[in-house]
Amino acid sequence: MKTIYLDNNATTRVAPEVLEAMLPYFGEKYGNPSSMHSFGGQVMKDVRKARERVAALLGATPDEIIFTSCGSESDNAAIRSALTSNPEKKHIVTSRVEHPAIRALCAHLAGQGYRVTELPVDGEGRLDMDQYRKSLTPDTAIVSLMWANNETGVIFPIEKAAEMARDRGILFHTDAVQAVGKIPINLAKTKIDMLSLSGHKLHAPKGIGVLYVRKGTKFSPFLIGGHQEKGRRGGTEATSSVIGMGVAAELAAARMEEENTRVKQLRDRLEESLLKVPNTKVNGDRVNRLPNTTSISFEFVEGEGILLMMDEFGICASSGSACTSGSLQPSHVLRAMGIPFTMAHGSIRFSLSIYNTDEEIDFVLEKVPPIIETLRGMSPYWKSGAQVC
Amino acid sequence: MKTIYLDNNATTRVAPEVLEAMLPYFGEKYGNPSSMHSFGGQVMKDVRKARERVAALLGATPDEIIFTSCGSESDNAAIRSALTSNPEKKHIVTSRVEHPAIRALCAHLAGQGYRVTELPVDGEGRLDMDQYRKSLTPDTAIVSLMWANNETGVIFPIEKAAEMARDRGILFHTDAVQAVGKIPINLAKTKIDMLSLSGHKLHAPKGIGVLYVRKGTKFSPFLIGGHQEKGRRGGTEATSSVIGMGVAAELAAARMEEENTRVKQLRDRLEESLLKVPNTKVNGDRVNRLPNTTSISFEFVEGEGILLMMDEFGICASSGSACTSGSLQPSHVLRAMGIPFTMAHGSIRFSLSIYNTDEEIDFVLEKVPPIIETLRGMSPYWKSGAQVC
Repeated sequence: MKTIYLDNNATTRVAPEVLEAMLPYFGEKYGNPSSMHSFGGQVMKDVRKARERVAALLGATPDEIIFTSCGSESDNAAIRSALTSNPEKKHIVTSRVEHPAIRALCAHLAGQGYRVTELPVDGEGRLDMDQYRKSLTPDTAIVSLMWANNETGVIFPIEKAAEMARDRGILFHTDAVQAVGKIPINLAKTKIDMLSLSGHKLHAPKGIGVLYVRKGTKFSPFLIGGHQEKGRRGGTEATSSVIGMGVAAELAAARMEEENTRVKQLRDRLEESLLKVPNTKVNGDRVNRLPNTTSISFEFVEGEGILLMMDEFGICASSGSACTSGSLQPSHVLRAMGIPFTMAHGSIRFSLSIYNTDEEIDFVLEKVPPIIETLRGMSPYWKSGAQVC
Repeated sequence: MKTIYLDNNATTRVAPEVLEAMLPYFGEKYGNPSSMHSFGGQVMKDVRKARERVAALLGATPDEIIFTSCGSESDNAAIRSALTSNPEKKHIVTSRVEHPAIRALCAHLAGQGYRVTELPVDGEGRLDMDQYRKSLTPDTAIVSLMWANNETGVIFPIEKAAEMARDRGILFHTDAVQAVGKIPINLAKTKIDMLSLSGHKLHAPKGIGVLYVRKGTKFSPFLIGGHQEKGRRGGTEATSSVIGMGVAAELAAARMEEENTRVKQLRDRLEESLLKVPNTKVNGDRVNRLPNTTSISFEFVEGEGILLMMDEFGICASSGSACTSGSLQPSHVLRAMGIPFTMAHGSIRFSLSIYNTDEEIDFVLEKVPPIIETLRGMSPYWKSGAQVC
């Protein structure tokens, strides 16, 4: 059975170009970049090239790029560094819709005496910028806000938020795991101090991430060890993955336009057609949104039921974030948006990539509406007459 | 030019079997193991299999295996967890010859109010077990001792040391990055609480590590985030690397005997023959030592000079640890052993693997003695008549 993969916010296929570039670094150019011999030294040069490519995608300089093992590590490193660098400050500002890496870390820090403000969002998943402004205090060590939401694709006004933090001398970090590669980013023109990205969300392999740290920003390493990454992250470089990350960054830049035209059109067609199913709604601001993502709630059905039935046709999507699936709790993002229970439980996130085709969307549009109808036929809520609401 | 790679304690070639097993997880089975759909679920099953394979190599149970991004991360996680779990204890016992991941972390912690005992070693790189016993106090939160030294290959009596810590209710961690895959390990029969290993030291790729945490040991996560690794390490699993790690573990178990016979014989032949060069000495206990490693000091020459000249013949080795090369400081390991300056500076570590052949050793033995002679011909110390010592 063919797989129709519409779960690209959970993870992506490694691009063939990326894999091809990585291959020599397993069994041939396997030297340690830190070695004195040229067999290792050559790899160091290639790592440097990869760093330049990532910097170019972000509008950064190579020295501002630290390779990590994943977006979560980058997030942990950013927040911990800010707190270590500002030991007198005990306040963190974040939002209710952040990724578990930030939320779980902040919850942990709250237990250690830090004060954490989790900014609410409105029904469309948007930040209240007035409330944000008011949350910034002289005691605030760091603001950490996601650039784009993994579940709804809603984009926060990160550049503006960073400026407001900078004006008050507060460090600003953004978890841009979902944004990088999908929308243009030019860090040189922003006041962002730190940014996290994850390779496997943009067709690099799992197990590689990046932390951008603006030149001049005090940084205290999270993973302490050898001199790698200019002493900012210990551990032998994951060379094949680093090389893959570099190529993925270059591809992402080259494909940004396609992502924002063809992929967006596919997403829009999928969304418009699914909205014809009765009692169906898109979650989140449809204007300021990633081009590849739609979160759709099918009222009175269980998202897990939809996923399972789609799975039988090889259609992959997600109910809530992949990081929380496995549990049947409604998504924290949709709850923060105040989406009613009967809607939140039936929410499905479709997230596309440049590998999706028109034919795939046709297939999904053929299969999904009957699935919803079947499930609603089994739903006591639906049967009780809710369909006339 | 053919590469003769004798730097396997710095990093290893990814085994072809490992790479082959990894390949499908880039562009085909790229699902997120946490996803609800079977495309991701299948990968979770494969991750489970890899975990079982690693557990089997160590004499552990799968639940005791946490996948990390590298040995350094495992080291950081182990020490931090021990300190978090024992907040009232402020003392750490380690040694002067540990890997930078442990040394740099302990130095950092010393700056934060922890008391660190760095146990000395004797001229052969051996621990004084009496001194070790005396270092253990009611205030000791954790002991961290490497199983085998990366530079000399000297093996510490880790099982005994772990027992002594357990008897006093002290957590015991070992950085076994150099030991795993080279000497048999059966954790079930030891009192070790935590163990770090690194994939790229045993023919898995760079960017994957393991932290073993004995069942029942309190563990506090280092990398806080999603529910992955049973909540003990956030971040999407580096699936291709995890799969590779599993295969590498299985290969290591199968090749343990060859490592301890054929590889050891190659190492011994290399060592015996190089010792015929005048004013040459093996560093460290030759009895309790890894089968693949020899650290040889060629008096009155610079190790870097030897490396560079060997490099011209495609021979890769190391002077001191790869993690500190790039600097010209004499190795901290050899300094801790009290190796005289004129010897320490001329030390070369040859570290073999199952991929090395008799022909390669012949080639090295043909090239290295003349290199030493050439360099000594240029050395003012040698010329001053030291050769008659």
